[in-house]
Amino acid sequence: QSSVTLFGVLDADLKYVKTGDLTMKKLDSGGLNTSRLGVRGTEDLGGGLKAGFWLETQVDTDTGTTGTGAFWGRRATVSLSGDFGEVRLGRNKTVSRLHLEDFDPTSFTGLGSVSVLYSNLGSGNSTSYGRADNLASYSLPTNLGGFYGGVDVSAGEGTGTNKGQSVRLGYKQGPLHVSGAYASTSNAADSSKFKLASLGGAYDFGVVRPSLSYTQTKYLSREQKIWTAAVTVPLGQQGQLWGSFTDAKANGVAETAAAGYTPIGDAKLYAVGYIHSVSKRTALYTTFSQLKNDGAARFIIGGAPAATANGQKSSGFDVGIRHSF
Amino acid sequence: QSSVTLFGVLDADLKYVKTGDLTMKKLDSGGLNTSRLGVRGTEDLGGGLKAGFWLETQVDTDTGTTGTGAFWGRRATVSLSGDFGEVRLGRNKTVSRLHLEDFDPTSFTGLGSVSVLYSNLGSGNSTSYGRADNLASYSLPTNLGGFYGGVDVSAGEGTGTNKGQSVRLGYKQGPLHVSGAYASTSNAADSSKFKLASLGGAYDFGVVRPSLSYTQTKYLSREQKIWTAAVTVPLGQQGQLWGSFTDAKANGVAETAAAGYTPIGDAKLYAVGYIHSVSKRTALYTTFSQLKNDGAARFIIGGAPAATANGQKSSGFDVGIRHSF
Amino acid sequence: QSSVTLFGVLDADLKYVKTGDLTMKKLDSGGLNTSRLGVRGTEDLGGGLKAGFWLETQVDTDTGTTGTGAFWGRRATVSLSGDFGEVRLGRNKTVSRLHLEDFDPTSFTGLGSVSVLYSNLGSGNSTSYGRADNLASYSLPTNLGGFYGGVDVSAGEGTGTNKGQSVRLGYKQGPLHVSGAYASTSNAADSSKFKLASLGGAYDFGVVRPSLSYTQTKYLSREQKIWTAAVTVPLGQQGQLWGSFTDAKANGVAETAAAGYTPIGDAKLYAVGYIHSVSKRTALYTTFSQLKNDGAARFIIGGAPAATANGQKSSGFDVGIRHSF
Repeated sequence: QSSVTLFGVLDADLKYVKTGDLTMKKLDSGGLNTSRLGVRGTEDLGGGLKAGFWLETQVDTDTGTTGTGAFWGRRATVSLSGDFGEVRLGRNKTVSRLHLEDFDPTSFTGLGSVSVLYSNLGSGNSTSYGRADNLASYSLPTNLGGFYGGVDVSAGEGTGTNKGQSVRLGYKQGPLHVSGAYASTSNAADSSKFKLASLGGAYDFGVVRPSLSYTQTKYLSREQKIWTAAVTVPLGQQGQLWGSFTDAKANGVAETAAAGYTPIGDAKLYAVGYIHSVSKRTALYTTFSQLKNDGAARFIIGGAPAATANGQKSSGFDVGIRHSF
Repeated sequence: QSSVTLFGVLDADLKYVKTGDLTMKKLDSGGLNTSRLGVRGTEDLGGGLKAGFWLETQVDTDTGTTGTGAFWGRRATVSLSGDFGEVRLGRNKTVSRLHLEDFDPTSFTGLGSVSVLYSNLGSGNSTSYGRADNLASYSLPTNLGGFYGGVDVSAGEGTGTNKGQSVRLGYKQGPLHVSGAYASTSNAADSSKFKLASLGGAYDFGVVRPSLSYTQTKYLSREQKIWTAAVTVPLGQQGQLWGSFTDAKANGVAETAAAGYTPIGDAKLYAVGYIHSVSKRTALYTTFSQLKNDGAARFIIGGAPAATANGQKSSGFDVGIRHSF
Repeated sequence: QSSVTLFGVLDADLKYVKTGDLTMKKLDSGGLNTSRLGVRGTEDLGGGLKAGFWLETQVDTDTGTTGTGAFWGRRATVSLSGDFGEVRLGRNKTVSRLHLEDFDPTSFTGLGSVSVLYSNLGSGNSTSYGRADNLASYSLPTNLGGFYGGVDVSAGEGTGTNKGQSVRLGYKQGPLHVSGAYASTSNAADSSKFKLASLGGAYDFGVVRPSLSYTQTKYLSREQKIWTAAVTVPLGQQGQLWGSFTDAKANGVAETAAAGYTPIGDAKLYAVGYIHSVSKRTALYTTFSQLKNDGAARFIIGGAPAATANGQKSSGFDVGIRHSF
């Protein structure tokens, strides 16, 4: 009677990270994919209609903790799908975040994650490139000849930073993939909006799959522009080499301190990695990344020591294992 | 070798709530049934004897959190059952709470829940109409020709508000259901007792099932009396209409402020709802409820904004989906 | 596709504990085995190689909470095993803890647990007789003719008390079991080390299995020496009687107060218990234990009230049920 799937990923890596002169060796969790445990299921309601649910919690393999947010902070949704598409209710990634992930070879995870360069520009709201509470989302049906898309709205419930909406449209057919997203989220007072617009494209030549994306964000008159060029190269049946280069630029206002705002700056992120699939579920991997800050920038590689001065370099290297179930 | 069932409910609703002039639109969790995830199982020990366990955690689909209390705060029990009945040890609903639920069409959940009118009258102990830690309970066997019953005791362990006992006796056969419960719980200093006595009855005429219940509580010389009249009406194979009216009256002492006590007052709760079962496991539903406060009363509908003045009206409307697995 | 096992133990006991004149009756969790819920699985990678994972959370059946530490604080590991042995990464018991458990009939659990006598001697680090974060461990293969062993290292990650290593070697063949362990862990400042050395042996005569172990710990010039003599006696097909006597002695420096150090003293622990297996998965049990403190010692039985003076006696009695799945 019960049709439940218990699934997850456990990922652990040995990591060496450095920011300026500070270094650290650590056993960490989620170098390739964030470690997680989930429960999900669907029920066929007849007539093409399906009900579904999805619960997913973060797992930190190094310490046994469950991340810093809500227990089911990765996802807690109930959904109805059919010929009309899918409606999902609950906490989840926004569709603009899903767009951004698709053009980062790391999917916003680990030492090479492009996500560390994204700033909310002082708006206090990061849901457009993250996850949102109280989210109602709609996805187009999957039979539109390669076209796909979705839109979501998160209810503010009296808190501005809970409020937002995003939309995404894409085309993925054969070797070609292009996608665009737009999101707008509110600040705490619900007085001004943070806006994100992004375009991405990739073409799979078989021996190599290059991709390019451009994202622009704005809050008040602060702006950030992020270019990512990436490439993935299959090596035999089991191997995959990938690399990415990201250039993030802040405009002058974004580089200027203001009440309640810590200025950002320009930065460049270089990342390369290799993934060796031992089986369908288990992979060994290694990653190297380096982040160069300019001016007031204090961005750091995920998991690296906090920067102690402007313009420091942050870098990391890891080897790890990812087991999914 | 392992005989474990993973089960749960994910329920999300779009809700509009109002108290006085304050209104809120929200995506909420548990409009029909509280969202939850559980693990349970039984083992046949031979000779009619069975061992069993039950773990159940609340899930908030809107934010991914797990409620405000203990992780397995809904239930964490191990039990032995046989011809003699069942003994359960652990955190669980008290038998008096189980009695009260049976005569509220919402089972104490969602916008129409009668539970919002229950006060502990300043005793600090709500376990008689809720759940209790350290609970040892005994249930009569299920083959007594319609008669059933249970008794439980919760150990104080040095904290008065952990201490209580409750008893319940009922008869459910054919269309008739009657039940009575009595509970007594301690205040923090273990110096005085909060007492609850309740009677309920229902008769299923097939086309309509009316029910009536009366509950009286007392702490020091404060008293509350709660009448609930309810009706459920099946509509076709898949539909169910329900309605309830509750009248809660406090005596003069309960309406008088005292050190450490916020006075309550009289209130009336009207609730109607409709549940459409799409399948055995999935239902769509809608609820409307209105709560009218008298005098010093500041009761609110579950999930509504807090009252800012005495005697305000609180109301709510939702549409939602409940998926169980 | 998914090969996951959901497993656990739910254990509840009715307990009477006493320290000095303070007594308490309680419903408690984990009198025989700590209540827990876990998810584990393995994947065959071919060529004798296996990947595996293990997540395990504590459950408190009395209150529904999950213990005081991390949610998956009992274990969160991913591993690779093969002809070479096994490598595990994540939070887990240290191999020195596994050694110590093997020579306590209670495996460090419940009223008779020897663990309450272990002191970190002011070092602030208890991982050598407990669990450690950031642990990388290696175990010898299991086909060495009875010899077994393991070694582990936990990365400090900038916190001295996260840093340690331990090693264990043993021989278990037929009726004989001998094992030795050595561990060294750092204090917070990573300036001095807490050291633990232990030896244990047991011989199964069939009608009775006596065991003996000796553990010595040192930090600065503080020392503790712990002797445990234990015996287990099978009674019929379903019963097991066990008893243990432990003598813990502190040297003069360990008995002397110092800045940030609460002195310990000498103590003796007597414990007896009986376990009746109703089935493979379910057991009823009873335990009695008494702990006698000397001098400045304020050790208490697990779950007993805190000592209010030096040299008090602490004792406990319980009856309970343990159900595993």
